[in-house]
Amino acid sequence: MYAHRFALETAMAGYGFGFERVMNCAIGEVMSITKPIAPLLAELEDLLGPVGFTTDPHDLAPWLTDWRERITGSALALVSPATVEQVSAVVKLAAAYAVAIVPQGGNTSMVAGAVPHGRALLLSLRRMRAIRRLSPEDNVTICEAGVILSDLHDAAAAIDRRFPLSLGAKGSATIGGLISTNAGGTQVLRFGNMRAQLLGIEAVLPDGQIFSGLAGLRKDNRGYDLAQLLAGAEGTLGVVTAAALRLVPAFAARSVAWVGLDSPEHALSLLRMLEQQLGDAVEGFELVPDSALQLVLKHIPGQRAPLASQPAWNVLIETTAPAGAPDPNERLEAALATAFEQGLVSDATLAANEAQATALWTLRENISEAERQQGGSVKHDISVPISQIATFMAETGPALAGHFGGASVISFGHLGDGNLHYNVLPPEGVVAKQWLDSHWDVVNRFVHDRVSACGGSLSAEHGIGEMKLAEFARTADPARLAALRAIKAALDPTGMMNPGKLVPLALN
Amino acid sequence: MYAHRFALETAMAGYGFGFERVMNCAIGEVMSITKPIAPLLAELEDLLGPVGFTTDPHDLAPWLTDWRERITGSALALVSPATVEQVSAVVKLAAAYAVAIVPQGGNTSMVAGAVPHGRALLLSLRRMRAIRRLSPEDNVTICEAGVILSDLHDAAAAIDRRFPLSLGAKGSATIGGLISTNAGGTQVLRFGNMRAQLLGIEAVLPDGQIFSGLAGLRKDNRGYDLAQLLAGAEGTLGVVTAAALRLVPAFAARSVAWVGLDSPEHALSLLRMLEQQLGDAVEGFELVPDSALQLVLKHIPGQRAPLASQPAWNVLIETTAPAGAPDPNERLEAALATAFEQGLVSDATLAANEAQATALWTLRENISEAERQQGGSVKHDISVPISQIATFMAETGPALAGHFGGASVISFGHLGDGNLHYNVLPPEGVVAKQWLDSHWDVVNRFVHDRVSACGGSLSAEHGIGEMKLAEFARTADPARLAALRAIKAALDPTGMMNPGKLVPLALN
Repeated sequence: MYAHRFALETAMAGYGFGFERVMNCAIGEVMSITKPIAPLLAELEDLLGPVGFTTDPHDLAPWLTDWRERITGSALALVSPATVEQVSAVVKLAAAYAVAIVPQGGNTSMVAGAVPHGRALLLSLRRMRAIRRLSPEDNVTICEAGVILSDLHDAAAAIDRRFPLSLGAKGSATIGGLISTNAGGTQVLRFGNMRAQLLGIEAVLPDGQIFSGLAGLRKDNRGYDLAQLLAGAEGTLGVVTAAALRLVPAFAARSVAWVGLDSPEHALSLLRMLEQQLGDAVEGFELVPDSALQLVLKHIPGQRAPLASQPAWNVLIETTAPAGAPDPNERLEAALATAFEQGLVSDATLAANEAQATALWTLRENISEAERQQGGSVKHDISVPISQIATFMAETGPALAGHFGGASVISFGHLGDGNLHYNVLPPEGVVAKQWLDSHWDVVNRFVHDRVSACGGSLSAEHGIGEMKLAEFARTADPARLAALRAIKAALDPTGMMNPGKLVPLALN
Repeated sequence: MYAHRFALETAMAGYGFGFERVMNCAIGEVMSITKPIAPLLAELEDLLGPVGFTTDPHDLAPWLTDWRERITGSALALVSPATVEQVSAVVKLAAAYAVAIVPQGGNTSMVAGAVPHGRALLLSLRRMRAIRRLSPEDNVTICEAGVILSDLHDAAAAIDRRFPLSLGAKGSATIGGLISTNAGGTQVLRFGNMRAQLLGIEAVLPDGQIFSGLAGLRKDNRGYDLAQLLAGAEGTLGVVTAAALRLVPAFAARSVAWVGLDSPEHALSLLRMLEQQLGDAVEGFELVPDSALQLVLKHIPGQRAPLASQPAWNVLIETTAPAGAPDPNERLEAALATAFEQGLVSDATLAANEAQATALWTLRENISEAERQQGGSVKHDISVPISQIATFMAETGPALAGHFGGASVISFGHLGDGNLHYNVLPPEGVVAKQWLDSHWDVVNRFVHDRVSACGGSLSAEHGIGEMKLAEFARTADPARLAALRAIKAALDPTGMMNPGKLVPLALN
């Protein structure tokens, strides 16, 4: 597997550093890496019982390999506490035995953010799956970390509300993981990412203290916002055990359109025109090149081209309307007619019913699978300033082709967020797997350098985890790294929380 | 002035602690509080020139007293750098001389968040007032810290966009201060507070390093979010010098209504019903009790009661509509008609034109001034879970009256945010100023205890500053305080950044 060796080395380097620091710890007893773990395991089994504790390799196996199946780790035990107090007790025990904690939700990280290594406990939050509260008056829910996203969607719908964040892994991804990775998805354009849904958290800090901030207040200016600090921290500062999340009103109707156009520039002009005309009704705006559509039509059974013409670029648009508003189809159709007159749009179709709407979304959602069947690609999850997307695309594709002997690019994603899934396919005629194995790192560096040059991010929504740690360290500016390390050292001085992830450690 | 002595003592305690830590600093030369400052002042004058440096008491005086005129401080000099490089140089010089830095924008803090004391430089950001970038393609602006809020409003309007945060002090408050206090205002219901507008920052950290994060990315999951950490940090972790902020489309039309109803419960039901019917069109929803309206009619010249009836409670509602949407007046009127049928609303009037809309908002905006003319009040800026507002009001008012011999309450504010400006007026017949002086602290504690009991916050949008530091320390939970102190110590180990504000220091 391409990135396997690098990631493991990085993780080990981070891990070793963590324990060096444990051993040099000035406060409390000096802990040794050689402290035997049998008594720890016995204490954990006493604490959690057979349901919450196992060292059986068969039980651990499914959770030791990351979602993309690139990295397989190991752990002393899988611990599954049922309460925040049990999580606190586990963290305190781990600290006393100088053992690392790797928190895990649905294990759907795209960057191997939850793979344990060596002297570590794999701390599953999956038993903490209560929706503690669901309030239509407050438009707030209190969810435990192990609640699965699609379960929260269903619970909110039952009280005529919705939780406005969704993504492909919604059937497995958990609230704790979504917070710890500051997840994105297809509704960020209107509602923001996971950070923006967060009204408070309950968490166990690395010293075992329970931080309880679940009142669900909309406004609270009492010092640094710990919920915002733990959002996107990938479990490196503590274990999120529950969260207060905002809910929004359910919508009454939606309109879904597939639009053909000439260029990403026209797509951006169309987006801004629609926002001016329709305001926040615009919820989804996904850019799809013809090359991606053709791959889906080739590899995914039962799909049809939505337009009779074959435009170079497509956009999938979703708008919604509340109960008191006019039919969203009429408003979107009127806006698209104006866009057609202005020469922004060359062709368009509106879904006439929910089945057609779903069919259009299915095209978008199957791009990654179609690519996989084509032979795979070097993947990137980048963001650049929105106004630079067109230039970035126009310049980087040919540069890659020139530099890597005809490699091609399929780039699609959330245009309104500046977030592209930017995938580089092997040149024609090579053995795909072989080429990908040998070119993964150099292609990554080539793309990330161009992203950095225009002020972009090498991780828009997937996070850093193990997979992107070296590239993050290579490209980040020193002030950012110094601040990250200072915060990590302040809240987790022994480096026990998810070592080897997110925070590139100092070289000396 | 009521809170003068306490606050000064607190500030001094914090200040002393900071320097004790400077003197014990393990890294770098040991700095002494007795190091003479004349060479520092000479270096600063060289660096900044006469426009950027002054020790003239007349120049300093306007900026040494807080907005509410409760606390007057002192400073070694007023320094006004014009560039981020100059800010960095000032911070490095201050660190070398063991002198504190107190950043200041428009000096409109409600909690004395920017008053310097003793061996400190008052660092004004007011010369850094460039709008570096204003992009309709990106819907992003890059503003320097000293840009005044109303100037940003005007600049955004000129490109058919708006910056969706506004408050009473918009003619003085600066972007840097609004970020550092995570300001709220009247549009939080729809757009969130200052934190939600923030796409990135440029800041000088306490070691003088410049952190540059102004690409304005919508999605960026590279580690802990420093912009979110500095938002609301009140200058205690560094100096914000510029920010990338989101812009939203301008609206085409607005509708403003004044509605009479029986109770806060009905007001909340009305809000949820409007959200269901009108979605995000609901931008403002301000609760005003009849007692507040009567004070405004009594003290502010030229005001008229908006309704013929005199309901116990009122709500000021604002909705907006983009260009492609139907007339917002019609939609709001239809929704209010339904509310009337449901018995939620007893009376209502819609502004027929902009002049009438402004007149309705003038009533709301003059409540504080009317109260001041009535003799003043003990003020609180609290938030409680929205569903508990009605109970909180129903119980706390009578309890206060009973405990404090007939004191009365005027409570108004942002119902949809759970944020109340909760003001306690002296009993009839007492000398107002005398009563306020002697009761301020005990009334604060009484109200804050009840806020804490229902999980609320003693600072919804004003922050902590000096004024609320003791109450924050008294009511905060230990895990929250420990985490705040750890972060403060990590990023500002010598305690030089705005000492005595926001972070209650440990007692030992």
